[in-house]
Amino acid sequence: MKAKNSHLTPKVNSKKAALNIDELFDKLISGEMASLSKAITLLESTNKNDNSIATLLVNKCQTYLTDQKRNTKRIAITGIPGVGKSTFIDKLGISIIEQGCKVAVLAIDPSSEKLKGSILGDKTRMEKLSLHPDAFVRPSPTSGSLGGVARKTRDSILLCEAAGFDFILIETVGVGQSETLAYQMVDLFMLLMIAGTGDELQGIKRGIMELADVIILNKTDQTEVKLLNKTKSVLIQALNYQSPNRINWKCKICEVSSLESKGIENVYQTLSDFFSKMEKSKQIESNRLNQNINWLELELKEAMWKHFSESTEVKELIYKNKKLLTEGKISVSNAVETIIEKLS
Amino acid sequence: MKAKNSHLTPKVNSKKAALNIDELFDKLISGEMASLSKAITLLESTNKNDNSIATLLVNKCQTYLTDQKRNTKRIAITGIPGVGKSTFIDKLGISIIEQGCKVAVLAIDPSSEKLKGSILGDKTRMEKLSLHPDAFVRPSPTSGSLGGVARKTRDSILLCEAAGFDFILIETVGVGQSETLAYQMVDLFMLLMIAGTGDELQGIKRGIMELADVIILNKTDQTEVKLLNKTKSVLIQALNYQSPNRINWKCKICEVSSLESKGIENVYQTLSDFFSKMEKSKQIESNRLNQNINWLELELKEAMWKHFSESTEVKELIYKNKKLLTEGKISVSNAVETIIEKLS
Repeated sequence: MKAKNSHLTPKVNSKKAALNIDELFDKLISGEMASLSKAITLLESTNKNDNSIATLLVNKCQTYLTDQKRNTKRIAITGIPGVGKSTFIDKLGISIIEQGCKVAVLAIDPSSEKLKGSILGDKTRMEKLSLHPDAFVRPSPTSGSLGGVARKTRDSILLCEAAGFDFILIETVGVGQSETLAYQMVDLFMLLMIAGTGDELQGIKRGIMELADVIILNKTDQTEVKLLNKTKSVLIQALNYQSPNRINWKCKICEVSSLESKGIENVYQTLSDFFSKMEKSKQIESNRLNQNINWLELELKEAMWKHFSESTEVKELIYKNKKLLTEGKISVSNAVETIIEKLS
Repeated sequence: MKAKNSHLTPKVNSKKAALNIDELFDKLISGEMASLSKAITLLESTNKNDNSIATLLVNKCQTYLTDQKRNTKRIAITGIPGVGKSTFIDKLGISIIEQGCKVAVLAIDPSSEKLKGSILGDKTRMEKLSLHPDAFVRPSPTSGSLGGVARKTRDSILLCEAAGFDFILIETVGVGQSETLAYQMVDLFMLLMIAGTGDELQGIKRGIMELADVIILNKTDQTEVKLLNKTKSVLIQALNYQSPNRINWKCKICEVSSLESKGIENVYQTLSDFFSKMEKSKQIESNRLNQNINWLELELKEAMWKHFSESTEVKELIYKNKKLLTEGKISVSNAVETIIEKLS
C-alpha cells in the first residue's frame, strides 16, 4: 500500500480541465441552470475523464455546502405507477415555490431490466413546474445498474443544493429496491396511495409503509367518502402497530386531489412541521451522517471489488476457480474461501 | 499474496471434525433426513466452526453431484401473501411424489427488517406433504441479511440434491429482491396469481411476469368464469409483448384450484414439458453455469470487502476518511477515490 499525496489532489491534471471545473463551479453556485444540467450530464457520462471532473465538482460542492451551512430539504416521493406522482409533484412543487423556495426534481427509475428507458421525472408530465424559473426537473439516468443510478442521484442532490435549490424531490416508483435506495438518501419519505384500490394493503405487505413519514391519499376526487374513510381507518390501524422511525414524529396521512389542487397546502404544512421538529432534534443532521457512512461503505465495496478483480494476479486466481466451478469440481463457497485465503 | 497448499485443504483440522464431516456426508447421501436437517443447521449456525464444516460438506456434495450426474429440478414458486402458495405446494409436492420422485421445499423469506420472523415453508401449512417420508420441508432461516439467507438457500439446495431429492421447490414471497434472488437459483420460475384481484396488473407493473416460465391462476374455485377468462386474456396479451426468457419455451398459464386439487396434474405435465425441452437444448446446464459464476462474483465482492476492510491499515484509512466525511470536508465519491488510490 503506497501513500499518495493528498486526498484532494485532482485526478484531472490538464490546465484546461481544471479551469473548466472552477468556471463550471462558479456558474453552478451562481444558480445558472445550464451549468447544473451540464454538471449532471458529466456525472452521467460514460467517459472516465468526465466522471473525474464530476467527482471533483461534487467534492467542491460538498465543502461549499458545509461552509455555507445551507438548510436544504430532501424528500422521496414514491407510489405504484398510476398513483399520480407527476401531477402531485407538479402541484406540490409550485406550492413550495410560492413560499419563496427553489425546487429540484430528480428521479430514480429502476425500469425493468428488459424494458430499458426512463419514465420518471418526465418534464412533459410536470407541465407547470418544469417551465417555472425556480424549478429544475431532471429525468432519471436511463442506463447503468440501479446502484449506479443511485450514486448519480446522490451526487446530483449535492449539485442541486450547491446551485441554490432548497427542496430536492426524489421521484421513484413503488418497486422494492429503488424505494429503499431513495429512502437512504432523503430526510423525509412520502408514500402516495389511492384509497380503495387495495393499494393500502399492498403497502402494508410490502413493508414500505414502515418507511413512510407522510402518506398521501391521492385522487380523493375519484374516491367515495365511505371508501376513503375505510381506507384511512385501515391505515391508521396499521400505523398503530408500527414503531415510529423518528423521535417525536409519527407517520401522518394527508388527503389530496392533485387534479383539483385540493389538500396540497396541508401537505406543505405537514412538511414544514416535520422539518421543524427534525431540525430541532438534530435528526436531519444525524440521519444524513449515517446515510453518508453507509453510502461510503457501499461504494467502497464496489470500488474494492473493481480494483482487485482487475489486478492480474487476482484475475488469474478468479479465472482458475471459475474453471473449477464450471467443471463442478468445487462449490461456490469453497471457491470464495480459496481466493480470499490467497489474498495476503 | 501467498499461495497456500490446495484449494481443497480442510480449514477444520481436528480429526474429530473431519470424521464428523465424513460420517455426516455418508449419512446424508444415504438419504437420512436427520442428517440433512443437521447439515442445514450447520449452514445456518452463527458459529464459524460450524460454517467451516458446512462449507466442506457442501463442497463434498457438489463434487458428488458432479460425479453422479444427477438430474435434479429446481423450481421457484412466488406470489403475494394470500395467493395460496403453501396449499399449492402441498398439492403439487404430493403429485410429484406420486410420480416416484422425492421433493424438498426450501424458503426465502425477506420478512420486513422490522418485523423479523419467518412465515414461509411453515410445516403446519403443508399438512400432507410435510408428513410424507419422501418430502423434506424446511422453513426459511429467520436471521441474517437477504444475501445471507440466499447463500444458505443455495447451499441447502446442493445438500438436498445430494440427499437424493429430485425436485427442489423454493418458496418465496412476491417482494422485489427476494424474487430476483430466487430466480437466480432455479431452473424454472413459477408465479401464482388470483384472477380478478388486480394482481395480474401488479405483476405486469412489477416486471416479475418477465421472469415467469409458468403462471398459475390459483383459487379458480373462488373465481367467476367470466372474470377468469378476462384475466387470462389480459395475461396472454401482456405475455405477447414480452420476448421469452428461454429458447423454445413461452410462458404457460395453468388454472388451478389447490383447495379442490383441480389442475395440479396439468401443472405437473407442464413442468415435465418444460424440463424435457430445457434438457434437450442444454439450457438447464448453461443456465446453472451462469448462475454459479454470478453467485461467485457476488460472494467474492462481499468476502473481499470483509477481508480488506478488517485489515489494520485499510481500517485506519477508512476511519480517517469517514471522519473527513462526517465533517463535511469531502464527498463520498472523493473518499472512495482516495481510499482505492492508496490500495496498492
